[in-house]
Amino acid sequence: MAQVYEAPLRDMRFVLHELFEGEDFGDLPHFGEFTPDLTDAILDEAARLTRDVLLPLNASGDAEGCTIENGVVRTPAGFRDAYAQFRDGGWAALSSPPEWGGQGLPETVNKLVEEMICAANLSFSLYPGLTHGATTAILGHASEDLKRAYLPKMVSGEWGGTMCLTEAHCGTDLGLLRTRAEPRGDGSFAVTGSKIFISSGDHDLTENIIHLVLARLPDAPRGVKGISLFLVPKLLPNDDGTCGPRNGVAVAGIEHKMGLKASATCQLAFEESIGWLVGEPNKGLAAMFTMMNAERVSVGIQGLGVGEIAYQSAVAYARERLQSRALSGTARPDLPADPIIVHPDVRRMLMTMRAYTEGSRALGQWVSRALDAEAHGADPETRQRASDFVAMMTPVVKALFTDLASETANLGVQIYGGHGFIREHGVEQFVRDARITQLYEGTNGVQALDLVGRKLGAHMGRYLRPFFHAVSAQLADAAKTSARDLAAWRSSLEQSFGMLQLSTGTIAQKALKDAEEAGAAATDYLRLVGLVGMGHCFLKAARIARHRLGEGTDEADFYTAKLATAGFFFDRILPQATAAFLSIKSGKRSLMALPADAF
Amino acid sequence: MAQVYEAPLRDMRFVLHELFEGEDFGDLPHFGEFTPDLTDAILDEAARLTRDVLLPLNASGDAEGCTIENGVVRTPAGFRDAYAQFRDGGWAALSSPPEWGGQGLPETVNKLVEEMICAANLSFSLYPGLTHGATTAILGHASEDLKRAYLPKMVSGEWGGTMCLTEAHCGTDLGLLRTRAEPRGDGSFAVTGSKIFISSGDHDLTENIIHLVLARLPDAPRGVKGISLFLVPKLLPNDDGTCGPRNGVAVAGIEHKMGLKASATCQLAFEESIGWLVGEPNKGLAAMFTMMNAERVSVGIQGLGVGEIAYQSAVAYARERLQSRALSGTARPDLPADPIIVHPDVRRMLMTMRAYTEGSRALGQWVSRALDAEAHGADPETRQRASDFVAMMTPVVKALFTDLASETANLGVQIYGGHGFIREHGVEQFVRDARITQLYEGTNGVQALDLVGRKLGAHMGRYLRPFFHAVSAQLADAAKTSARDLAAWRSSLEQSFGMLQLSTGTIAQKALKDAEEAGAAATDYLRLVGLVGMGHCFLKAARIARHRLGEGTDEADFYTAKLATAGFFFDRILPQATAAFLSIKSGKRSLMALPADAF
Repeated sequence: MAQVYEAPLRDMRFVLHELFEGEDFGDLPHFGEFTPDLTDAILDEAARLTRDVLLPLNASGDAEGCTIENGVVRTPAGFRDAYAQFRDGGWAALSSPPEWGGQGLPETVNKLVEEMICAANLSFSLYPGLTHGATTAILGHASEDLKRAYLPKMVSGEWGGTMCLTEAHCGTDLGLLRTRAEPRGDGSFAVTGSKIFISSGDHDLTENIIHLVLARLPDAPRGVKGISLFLVPKLLPNDDGTCGPRNGVAVAGIEHKMGLKASATCQLAFEESIGWLVGEPNKGLAAMFTMMNAERVSVGIQGLGVGEIAYQSAVAYARERLQSRALSGTARPDLPADPIIVHPDVRRMLMTMRAYTEGSRALGQWVSRALDAEAHGADPETRQRASDFVAMMTPVVKALFTDLASETANLGVQIYGGHGFIREHGVEQFVRDARITQLYEGTNGVQALDLVGRKLGAHMGRYLRPFFHAVSAQLADAAKTSARDLAAWRSSLEQSFGMLQLSTGTIAQKALKDAEEAGAAATDYLRLVGLVGMGHCFLKAARIARHRLGEGTDEADFYTAKLATAGFFFDRILPQATAAFLSIKSGKRSLMALPADAF
Repeated sequence: MAQVYEAPLRDMRFVLHELFEGEDFGDLPHFGEFTPDLTDAILDEAARLTRDVLLPLNASGDAEGCTIENGVVRTPAGFRDAYAQFRDGGWAALSSPPEWGGQGLPETVNKLVEEMICAANLSFSLYPGLTHGATTAILGHASEDLKRAYLPKMVSGEWGGTMCLTEAHCGTDLGLLRTRAEPRGDGSFAVTGSKIFISSGDHDLTENIIHLVLARLPDAPRGVKGISLFLVPKLLPNDDGTCGPRNGVAVAGIEHKMGLKASATCQLAFEESIGWLVGEPNKGLAAMFTMMNAERVSVGIQGLGVGEIAYQSAVAYARERLQSRALSGTARPDLPADPIIVHPDVRRMLMTMRAYTEGSRALGQWVSRALDAEAHGADPETRQRASDFVAMMTPVVKALFTDLASETANLGVQIYGGHGFIREHGVEQFVRDARITQLYEGTNGVQALDLVGRKLGAHMGRYLRPFFHAVSAQLADAAKTSARDLAAWRSSLEQSFGMLQLSTGTIAQKALKDAEEAGAAATDYLRLVGLVGMGHCFLKAARIARHRLGEGTDEADFYTAKLATAGFFFDRILPQATAAFLSIKSGKRSLMALPADAF
């Protein structure tokens, strides 16, 4: 049994067209041309690409890894061809603006395509992913000259991009960074310093790579207020747009990692490399955060993708592997033993994986709708509300989806038993690949601190309001349901939501006096928000499913399965909320009791 | 920063000498010679050996792995020397009976030494570990002739041992196995078949390897009732005990694994290999289970060991890595940033790791006391009670400790941030190594089924009684405490214990009508038992600590830290019990609702 993946198109169409129909952030006439027929055709094409082109390189890319020889980085066999197909098919330009050659796809569709790419080949996704992140920062902050010189080739995927933030001594705390930029007198700068952990920092997929580098100008203020952002190409473009001479960016090495081995993670040495300022001097962090926030949602989607392939691979094995008889009596007398999918504990694992991925997909789609509405909403009030929701949910999507992805990938290995530990089956790769998503673009602990420290209390709780209002509104709306299961699930959600409301008040109050109280509650609070958010989506999904089944539908299997997954979520997953609530309630005391030198 | 490990001797002496003083299974005069002075000296020596000899080979062994060339398996550089020191120092013979050259150490001490070995080098531990397992089965079931021919060299560590159960199509379900044994007419048998996943199946550490192989006799009944156990040496011994000719056992390959890379996991092909029956014909599974049950406790200890080195490595990094300022205000103005150990979310992770390892060590020691009492208790009633307790706790120790170990190893990586994903820091190895402990010797799901299916309801709940009585007795005894924190923790334990009692009743009742109900509850029930068990140990430890501090002690730091860890456990870990309880309560309905073909 090997890695198994087919894009879950039916569930994707469900979250895209049905789950949030006519809700939340209103219609977006901006995307009028993207009719359901068109978006479904795009999803179908993406499903083919990811299955036929990217998936076959996932295990082989992991086994071979990237290599470096004489400072030149090579991706594993097949990656160059796959990237060429990807680029030539227009996939790199999918969500970029049409004025720069992009296709202007809404995020609601784009994030589903991202999920497919990440599922089929997480390492591969990093190459276009970083380019897209760099493009976003250039779009938002660079001069028109820089945009004209770089965007067309980056949007098309001819050139790649990177984000160069981390140095050996500073990751989370960018205030410590040392890379410096000296004016060269002609409007350009000489950038010098060492960066580590640079995803796609060098490779053989594109003819040029455009680095976005954080550095300090001479006499810049200390700390985060003295950081500027520079665009530093690997090869300096000629005036006609072709690639010119090398620009003093050397690859000092590639990292040997636990996973994500087909993604080239580089140490880069900038030695008086020529670069141009992006945005205002000393405002580099703000520019970088535009990109970073977008990336954080994408990292959440990475987790979701890995979770989905882990789930599908586990289902396939659980159907095929014969071992012992069902506890309820022999299920398959024609076989020497029953397929392990009959065993309740295997079901528990499969259903957990399923609930996590479906729940994440639904919640992710809600956030994608807000991303589109933030950019193209009908009025300023809608755009603000969407933006508030995105601000609150960005750390949740990043940390929740990736924590659940690691759990899901590990459950997948568990279903394979000892065979899961053997490399040839390909499922231990999912554990190793998923692991990075909890770490990069801000560790999940940093996400939780962002949520409680920057989002929870800001503007009198304004960021939280769209989420809280949506859950309240559904609870009120569903109160009149007569279906017993829906009523029970609604009541479970109401209880968890009550715990979330209480926790929010407690943290806001305690943190006013003692910031460590917020830090002590952060991770459990994020999980509580995530559970309530997924519960909200499952209740909504279940109500739609019940309605469709009541009307009569020729897709009864799909809606019945949705009800089953929702039921499992409320019975078996949502109880985690109580544990999170009790942890939060206990406060910082026992957590900080042991002095640092007593560990 | 690299892998950091020093045996936690103070906590080991605490669980060994203080935690269960004068309790449970009474004094064991059999071990009278092992005075505290002697056992402490043994622990000190083991600490030196593991730190100086085994730890330095842990990362290098992982990087190099085992190799096979022309059918010959080689361990990584340094392993031969380390094994020679280990063997010559008498460590291989530690817990074996003196009549066969062993040192007869009680399990209470032996399991602490095992923990050290597994912490310093999990892969290494498999070589003596499997030999010891094979020795146990031979001791328990083989003829005197076989014992005389094999035990002395196996006990001393001159020869190695293996357990050959698994075949490609059968792991959990040994009833399916196909390896066969034909009588050769001289009392020996010709064994033919293919085995996979054989730990220490071949290597260069010992001159001979003694395989214990499950196989079928001609005309054996089908299924598990037709399996016999055979002793099959790699080299046939001559009459004088030296190694003679090869015995048709070929290494078909070694597995490429996620971790545990310095442990040689072999595919073995037996081709008319000469072997001898161990125990009765067709009773091989019973003989193998003697060994398997002992191994399961040891696998739990493996998890504990990996958890401890992950914890220590994370503490060292959290003290050294400077990043951002404390939320409560700058802690170290002399440094460019504060060490990350000041951050509450880092504390949360470190305290979780600490609570898991200390809790597991205490619970493991309780079980070790029962192992000793089972063998050497003063009277049959004590031995039976100890044996019942071991029967119940074996699956709990195996599954709980290893699940917590993987969680702990992952938290360790999380504390390292992106650096945790890079191989040179050595902490992602702990995640990869720990992963196998949840899978082998019966997956953790199989352990949970053993607990609810074979132990919970058997003999009117007799297996559970020693555990339930001990917790009840402490709750009664601690009811009179006037210390506020102890009273609060006692009350938390009482609540969780109530949930455990309720769950036990519910499962016992439901399972009578429907075995799938037991399967659906199994994993959560095992976790609930484990949480209550650790809570029982933490309350006991806290009461002792409070008492010692009240008396006055020059080790106030140790006892104060114990109280802090206990407080954290009750505030932050024990709330998981509620989630497990609610999951169990929901029963099998939502878990089995989705038909197998709808996944």
